[in-house]
Order: sequence, then structure tokens, then C-alpha cells
Amino acid sequence: MSKRLSQLGEFGLIELLKRYQGSGAPVMKGIGDDTAIVPLDDQRYLLLTTDMLLEGVHFERKTSPHLIGHKALACSVSDIAAMGGRPRYALVSLGVPGELSWAFVRDLYKGMDALARQFGVAIVGGDTVKSAKVVINIALTGEAKKTKVIYRKGAQPGDIIFVTGVLGRSLSTGWHLKFIPRVKEAQYLVRYLKPTAMIDISDGLAADLGHILKASRVGAMVGEGLIPRRAGASTCQALYDGEDFELIFTIPPRTAASLRKQPRFPLYPIGAIVASPRQLMIRDQKNILSKISPQGYTHF
Amino acid sequence: MSKRLSQLGEFGLIELLKRYQGSGAPVMKGIGDDTAIVPLDDQRYLLLTTDMLLEGVHFERKTSPHLIGHKALACSVSDIAAMGGRPRYALVSLGVPGELSWAFVRDLYKGMDALARQFGVAIVGGDTVKSAKVVINIALTGEAKKTKVIYRKGAQPGDIIFVTGVLGRSLSTGWHLKFIPRVKEAQYLVRYLKPTAMIDISDGLAADLGHILKASRVGAMVGEGLIPRRAGASTCQALYDGEDFELIFTIPPRTAASLRKQPRFPLYPIGAIVASPRQLMIRDQKNILSKISPQGYTHF
Repeated sequence: MSKRLSQLGEFGLIELLKRYQGSGAPVMKGIGDDTAIVPLDDQRYLLLTTDMLLEGVHFERKTSPHLIGHKALACSVSDIAAMGGRPRYALVSLGVPGELSWAFVRDLYKGMDALARQFGVAIVGGDTVKSAKVVINIALTGEAKKTKVIYRKGAQPGDIIFVTGVLGRSLSTGWHLKFIPRVKEAQYLVRYLKPTAMIDISDGLAADLGHILKASRVGAMVGEGLIPRRAGASTCQALYDGEDFELIFTIPPRTAASLRKQPRFPLYPIGAIVASPRQLMIRDQKNILSKISPQGYTHF
Repeated sequence: MSKRLSQLGEFGLIELLKRYQGSGAPVMKGIGDDTAIVPLDDQRYLLLTTDMLLEGVHFERKTSPHLIGHKALACSVSDIAAMGGRPRYALVSLGVPGELSWAFVRDLYKGMDALARQFGVAIVGGDTVKSAKVVINIALTGEAKKTKVIYRKGAQPGDIIFVTGVLGRSLSTGWHLKFIPRVKEAQYLVRYLKPTAMIDISDGLAADLGHILKASRVGAMVGEGLIPRRAGASTCQALYDGEDFELIFTIPPRTAASLRKQPRFPLYPIGAIVASPRQLMIRDQKNILSKISPQGYTHF
């Protein structure tokens, strides 16, 4: 009997879909990562990512269309940034009900346009179709120097784990709609600190740090008191809420020690990579150690 | 007062959206064409296209998922082919209800995978989200030699207009789900006949030939009896039904005359480009001339 998708979960589904990858063109990194990496020229990789946002799931009809547009593009820009890339070209597919006002679509595009201008993204095309509910899909290309790309894999035992901002309560505070993707921060990190692994937090600290651990075949020890939290956020919310769109990255202890002068953006060390156990552990204020499930927010 | 989208129509909406193009990266051809063209390297352009398919609009839940997957990718492959490009990398966004079976998604991917293998496309990633109805978005990259790209503009008075197959009744016959994108035909044309303009028929012969006429600032005279029709299709159906996914292209009369030996695929001359009037005209079997509205199937 065929399983329902709700039984598989998003990550289970992605694992199964890896069987169907077509063929032909060379691929450095494909299905399973937030961003695909393919050859561009001698020096550079072409990065490819896509995000779909749906009315009733990711936003409501009454949500500011400017913010919907902003968020739709910002999610993809964040994916490119987390690989050490610069975003370049966007395609926008829009499903809209016929009774929707032109002002709604205009403001949605204004939101995308403002973010695109901020990060040098050209919106080059798309598709518009009639739909019962509003659907937006962004496909975004990016570029990265081959020597500068950062993967989920690469974290080494002893590396210090950092995040770039406060976590938790992203949905209840509206942060998930208005966040600024950490492109400048990622470019700084790539240039000066050379992280061994990096990812952006879309599914939650536990899940996304979990992705780094799994890909790098390591574990991590995080201090509960070290996790920066948004005002009013519990530890659970900081670990599992998701949609923070901050960066998690790891750097060798020597590089971390040389960080005398902080860059002009927040950097919070939250723990360290360990060789074993290959799990995410958290040490609470009373020095009690717990295992953390890597499953944060899952989509099914 | 803000207009409803149903009053603007798809082409009206696209015109308005041209204001919001972000900035930064260089663009050769952007919003308004089916495929965007951006620089890749000295020799080649990168082509970018996207298509969104929705349950209840483009297919039903009871439609074969294999065919849904096939069609979703084939639409984008057809767009790349019509520019003279070769398809390369696909991103697949999928919105699916939790109660949907794994078999449905698997067969949808099998349909995409089979087509991808046929045309050398690598499926490199995507996004999966929970949705009340099935939504698929394909974003596809392609490559073309700079000297081989073909646009909508470029048709010259005197050029002969060709189509690559029979038209009309695509939806009622199921052709719209199982068509084979004309990649090989387009590559042959680019190599041997150098069309002055080309487009694929998604909105209907009248609308898509209309796009060539508008972009090339010319008119056309088509013979009603010359339009190849699918069995049982009326002239109206051949002109307006859409989703035929055949190529329309124009070649200079000298090239057309040298076409002693037909290539191994059908080529139907249907008329000629004229300098004026800048309209699409049809001459019927009784030699009576009519103007044809360029609006075929519109999405709103």
C-alpha cells in the first residue's frame, strides 16, 4: 500500500524523490540541499534555488502584499547567501484569483522589487496563472566563486558554532515576513572567517543545525544559556519555531579565538562541534545534558 | 479604484509588472517573453523560464500523475527550445495535500524524470510544501550559443511562416498532457534554416503568431486551407485552442525555396509575413480576407 505523504514527512519525501533526477548536465550538489550547485565557468558555480509560498499556509489574504512579496524573494535570497553566493536572477510564478485587485499584485511586486534592488537581483520573468488562492513561486539563480562555496558538510570536531541573530517567535512577532536575508553577513564570513559549514535557519535551530551535523557526520554540544532568543521566546521556541532566517555556521577554534574585533553585525557563539555522539545535545543552566531531536518544524 | 485582475487580462498584467524588475545583474531579454536571456560567458547565453501548473486549472486530481509531471516539465522545455536553446537544469516546487498518496507524487516525478532523461535535463532541487490542492512549479535553465538564439522579433516582410505540426483540440484529445517538446526540431532549424523569428504555441496560433508580429512590427497573411489541423478541429480551434506546443517560425523566401529535401519532421507553410497592415489576416477557401484578433486563449 502506498503511504500518505503525511506519514512520510517532508524529509522522508525528499529522500524518496532523490531517485528521480533526470540526467545529462553535470551537477555538483543536487536534490536535498536548499540550493543546487552546477558548473558555470572555470572560476564560478551557478547556484539554483526555489521556494513556494501559499495562501493559507505561509500567509493569509489579509497579510500585507508588500510583505508577502518581500518574504517570497527573501527566502530564496537567504538560501543563496547561506552557500556563500550572491543572488542574481529571479523568476516569479504567480497564481492569482481573477477577483483579486491589481493593487494587491502591484504591492506584492513592489515588495519583491525593493528587496531585489537592495541585493542586486534582476527579476527577469515568470508565469502568471489563474488560481483559487494566491500562490507564489520564486526561482533564483546565484553565483559563487568555486573556492568560496560553503556546504552543510565540513564541520569538524572542536569547531565553534555561531548564529547571527536572536531566535524564536518569528511567526508570532511577524519577523518571518520582514526579515532581511543575511547576504552581507555571509559575504563577510566567506571572506574573513571561512566557515567550515553554513546553513540558514528556516526549519528551526534544532533541525537546521541537525542538517549540518548529519552532513558533516559529527555531533554538537550547545549551551542553553548561549542561545540568543527573541524577547519572550522560550528555549523550545528558539530551538524549534523556525523561519528565523539567521545563519548558523561553524569555524575552527583558532579562527574563533582570533575574533578580537567583532564584525559590524551580531555573532553569538552557542556551542561546539563534537566527534561523538553524533547527536545534538544541550547543556542547561543547571549543567544537565539532554539530547535534542533534530526534527524541528516539519512541513507535513 | 484598483482594477480587478480579470479586467486586466494576463497580457495586461504582464505589461504592468514590467515596472518591477529589481536591478543589478545585466539582462538581455526579461519580463514579457516566455524565456529570459542573461549572459553566461563569451560564447553562450543562460536561458531562464518557469511554468506553474495548478490542480483544477491545468489538470485534475484524477489526471494521470505521470502525465502531469511530463506536462509540467515539457512546457518549460518547449519554451527553451523555441529560443533555440538546449534545456539543462530544473527546479521543481511541489505543493501537495497531506492525504495524497506517495504513489501519486512518485508517478508525477517518474513522468518528469522520463522526459528529463530524454532531453538531458538534470532535476537538481526544489521545494515541497503542504497545500490544499496540487501545485507544481518548474523553473528551467537552458543554454544557447549567442549566435544561435532566436527571438520573437526578427520576422521580415516576405518571410514564409511555418508550423511544425497539426493544431487545435489539444485539450479534448489529451495532446496537451502528452506532447513532446520540439527540441530536436528547433535545434535542426537553428542549425540549417536559421529562422528569423520563432515561438512555441501555448496560447494558440493566433495569439502566438500575434506575439511574433507585434515584436517584429509586421503583419501576416495566412491561408485558412494551409493551417494543419488535428482530426476534427475547426479553423477556430486551430487558431485559438492553444497548448499545441508546436513551433511557429519564419524563414526568408530564399531559404524556404531551397528546402528541396524536407527534414525528418513535418513542416507546414501556412502563409507569409507582410509589411502592412500590421495585423494577422486570414484568406479563406473562397478567397475572402478577414482580420484575426491576436487574442487567443487568455488565462484570465
